[in-house]
Amino acid sequence: MSRPRRSEHIREALIQAGIEQLSIHGYHGTGIKQILDEVNVPKGSFYNFFASKEAFVAEVIARYSQDLVQQLQGFVAGDGKHLSPKAQLQTIYEFTLSKIANSEFKQACLIGAMSSEMANQSDLCRDQLKAATKTLAVFFTERIQAGQLAGEFRQDVTASELANMYWTTWEGALITLKMHNRLKPAKDTMALMLNVLMA
Amino acid sequence: MSRPRRSEHIREALIQAGIEQLSIHGYHGTGIKQILDEVNVPKGSFYNFFASKEAFVAEVIARYSQDLVQQLQGFVAGDGKHLSPKAQLQTIYEFTLSKIANSEFKQACLIGAMSSEMANQSDLCRDQLKAATKTLAVFFTERIQAGQLAGEFRQDVTASELANMYWTTWEGALITLKMHNRLKPAKDTMALMLNVLMA
Repeated sequence: MSRPRRSEHIREALIQAGIEQLSIHGYHGTGIKQILDEVNVPKGSFYNFFASKEAFVAEVIARYSQDLVQQLQGFVAGDGKHLSPKAQLQTIYEFTLSKIANSEFKQACLIGAMSSEMANQSDLCRDQLKAATKTLAVFFTERIQAGQLAGEFRQDVTASELANMYWTTWEGALITLKMHNRLKPAKDTMALMLNVLMA
Repeated sequence: MSRPRRSEHIREALIQAGIEQLSIHGYHGTGIKQILDEVNVPKGSFYNFFASKEAFVAEVIARYSQDLVQQLQGFVAGDGKHLSPKAQLQTIYEFTLSKIANSEFKQACLIGAMSSEMANQSDLCRDQLKAATKTLAVFFTERIQAGQLAGEFRQDVTASELANMYWTTWEGALITLKMHNRLKPAKDTMALMLNVLMA
């Protein structure tokens, strides 16, 4: 197997730095220089990799959501295999909330952050955000459908509608999380949604 | 009655421009120069009114939420007086969504936008965001409690918990609204919450 070229390494490092910096500082709060400094790359070389900041961010969003969906699917097929669909969803939100707490509430969901701040300023990024949300909706719809079959979730609402509601509540919960700088309000909201309103 | 001084007019105009610009462009996307240009005020004078951009934004958040709660209370005591609590909540979200559509989905909720983008970067603003959310929670808890008494909402969850859920879903719905640049997904989510999950 041939080793990836050095330029591939740099490109990858830039995208990873982008995921981190954009999650924390937002679109307008993250300069290209900041990304390059993280990766220790001279300023001029950015445009060898990406046509513009906008194109870079669109790619960062795409990568972030691919990684996220892959992790979620990996959990369901692996460690979470023997959990019920509802327990899988609970484990996922609890794990994600702990991860956010570990970042001192700075790094939440890139999809929510970019949608809120700049989706209306870039068609390119907005298309990636929509595609990301669509892929995530498929994942959550499948889990909720399985939960409906197992009798864990109400059946008077379609799995797809519940999945949209679940994701919408999650994005809203992350906003209150950043505001409160603590987990409890978001955790309570997700538990109420999963255990009571969706039951 | 003495007329308000000119400086009061300018201060007020700066705050109103702040509400608009920050809602559309976010914290980092809005420069002080931009605000001053809107109001036609020379750059140097900003700091006669506000100690810093941060102090200005904190005041903008406070004013935005005061105005919002006043409008909501005015509606419930006035035009919406003869509606049921559930119909009041429905009218409020439908009216607000139309207003956002009129701004071409650029101007949504300042509280959500600032919480998502910069609550973790400023204690001053975060305190105002928390205070705003608390006041709004009181309003929505009262409406939901009235709806519970009228048999419109489920009673196995407290009005306060439902109010938090309702607000969280609203903030999440505004994120999807900005992403989709259309009303339907947000409208569907709010209708499902109000008519089915909270019923």
